[in-house]
Amino acid sequence: MKIALLGFGVVGRGVYEITRERSDMQVTKVLCLEDISLPDAQAVKNIRDILEDDSIDTVVEAMGGLHPAYEFVRAAMEAGKNVVSSNKALVCTYYRELLPLAQKMGVGFRSTAAVGGGIGWLSELERARRVQTLRQVGGIMNGTCNYILDNMTRLGKDYTEALKQAQALGYAEANPTTDVEGIDTWHKIILSSNIAFGISLDFDSVPVAGISRILAEDIRRFAAHGRVCKLLGIGKRTEDGFSVYVQPALVGQDQLEANVPMNYNLITFVGDISDRMSFYGQGAGRYPTAYNVVQDLVDVAAGKGFYAPYGVGTKADNTETLSWYVRGGWDGQISEDWDGAVITGKVSVADMHAWLKTHSDAFAASVQE
Amino acid sequence: MKIALLGFGVVGRGVYEITRERSDMQVTKVLCLEDISLPDAQAVKNIRDILEDDSIDTVVEAMGGLHPAYEFVRAAMEAGKNVVSSNKALVCTYYRELLPLAQKMGVGFRSTAAVGGGIGWLSELERARRVQTLRQVGGIMNGTCNYILDNMTRLGKDYTEALKQAQALGYAEANPTTDVEGIDTWHKIILSSNIAFGISLDFDSVPVAGISRILAEDIRRFAAHGRVCKLLGIGKRTEDGFSVYVQPALVGQDQLEANVPMNYNLITFVGDISDRMSFYGQGAGRYPTAYNVVQDLVDVAAGKGFYAPYGVGTKADNTETLSWYVRGGWDGQISEDWDGAVITGKVSVADMHAWLKTHSDAFAASVQE
Repeated sequence: MKIALLGFGVVGRGVYEITRERSDMQVTKVLCLEDISLPDAQAVKNIRDILEDDSIDTVVEAMGGLHPAYEFVRAAMEAGKNVVSSNKALVCTYYRELLPLAQKMGVGFRSTAAVGGGIGWLSELERARRVQTLRQVGGIMNGTCNYILDNMTRLGKDYTEALKQAQALGYAEANPTTDVEGIDTWHKIILSSNIAFGISLDFDSVPVAGISRILAEDIRRFAAHGRVCKLLGIGKRTEDGFSVYVQPALVGQDQLEANVPMNYNLITFVGDISDRMSFYGQGAGRYPTAYNVVQDLVDVAAGKGFYAPYGVGTKADNTETLSWYVRGGWDGQISEDWDGAVITGKVSVADMHAWLKTHSDAFAASVQE
Repeated sequence: MKIALLGFGVVGRGVYEITRERSDMQVTKVLCLEDISLPDAQAVKNIRDILEDDSIDTVVEAMGGLHPAYEFVRAAMEAGKNVVSSNKALVCTYYRELLPLAQKMGVGFRSTAAVGGGIGWLSELERARRVQTLRQVGGIMNGTCNYILDNMTRLGKDYTEALKQAQALGYAEANPTTDVEGIDTWHKIILSSNIAFGISLDFDSVPVAGISRILAEDIRRFAAHGRVCKLLGIGKRTEDGFSVYVQPALVGQDQLEANVPMNYNLITFVGDISDRMSFYGQGAGRYPTAYNVVQDLVDVAAGKGFYAPYGVGTKADNTETLSWYVRGGWDGQISEDWDGAVITGKVSVADMHAWLKTHSDAFAASVQE
């Protein structure tokens, strides 16, 4: 297998290092705008040098961002090359374009490292689908948010302090919006739901709330009631369709999720035969991510395509009702008073997310049963 | 794929039910000493009716026990049939006979359900081995022991009470020896280590201590020191070889292992690229186990063989030194007094297991770091 790497940052360099140790695959070209010199691969600055090179059968996209990654991946597929990408924003955003194109061109297309980093999550979904119907997917899918919430919970820090420490340690970016507002988890749960359920979700039907409004006082109230807050992405089959959303959620202190430390991920599926299966590991980082890119390369070499067939467009319905912790201006039904905040009566996911949009000082978290 | 089922108990019946829903495989014969009548499969009482039936390409062994399961599996392989087994005692005990035979005969041989039930653990090891060297495997591999220890820890029950409840609920057998003395975990960690490291362990080099000597007072001491006791199977690469053993171990209350409830399993590998990956799910039960038998059938149909090449005979060395909780007659070095019990200085795994053999009233658990 002859590989061209697009991008030579954290993940790209990891892929290069791992493949150098193998005899079954070789990175022969690297697209990189900086001047680099590699002993056994040619650095190129123009994508044409890769697209027009017939000796290259597989392209690894490790550039990040949507553009020009999308155009390059599309062109690679159109040139008959397999594509492996670790870019969740790309694969999620252009799911309806890239998946049918890959299937039409008969090229391999894998993105296991896009969700869960070192956890082989998307290939677990593919394996599970061979034998059973999946009922639910999701969990702790963003290491940055888990790091911040874990720090606030264990060390009593406030949000700003915990974020700063995450940034200092490289667990959060200088502009942390994508992570802390839940966008990263949103991409991951949409992609996971598409693959698990064989659908193609409308983005605007999947609501997202992040963790940036959380205060140290919220965390203290959770602890007083035996609860821990985690940012969860959830996708569920319901009676009539699918419920898919991203939000802070309160889990019991003795739940597995509550004890996920640092920047780790814990992702779960529930199948109608296997019941609950959970996967725990490093959700990001050079080597865990590059590891699953190389796993994808092994699968592509063995002739594997995408994880699931392309499914028709679907709107998440989110009429599922939950109880919620709310701090700040809740004027609906209340079932418990938590001293400065409340536990609401049953409110649908759609209604609570709509309410949060018009109450920018409020913080809400669902209460998991 | 035409399948013969050997045995029609808990797992066998589950496999039959799941395969009935599929078009790519069919159970056509069932070996069962009782009189049963099935709409679409023939019940037979003589193994020859299966061995001599050329339409049958694959045999699922779900009888349990070593004999005649071993003779039947061997004969099936010799007749050129693929074998899928959920029987960890069989696959572990006859690893040196069955694995080379399957490879010689060119038949598929899978046993994913043998370790971790619904967790696809052995196939996870197979996948990991494609890209990295495994450093460590193991964890909570026996649901019965986890149920008993969890009950003692959360509800303050004593061992006998917790065992009785596990028996009443079907989580422990009438004769619980295999589970509570760690034999089941011992089979599982030997098999896992063989596959993870490409070796074939000498059984008598792998020491095992179970949980039957544990008292409610031990559990109270662990809680007072922020610890929880779990039965762990551990296999590690060391400087010179391999350290492989089964023993009670004390983990911190906020470790993932500490929060594994009921009869669940949590099994982990550490790889030199992916770092730590853990898998959580039902370690036993009809449908989780049958689920992975059917996953194996899908893999066998796709041409997959065993998980790893057959490795040469190896002795575990177990010179690794640990600190231990000991209640009862410890006369060696002591690093802490736990009021009726002690924490020892560093003692090797081999030495502590040898000491326990001559001190039948003592209970010991390693202190995990």
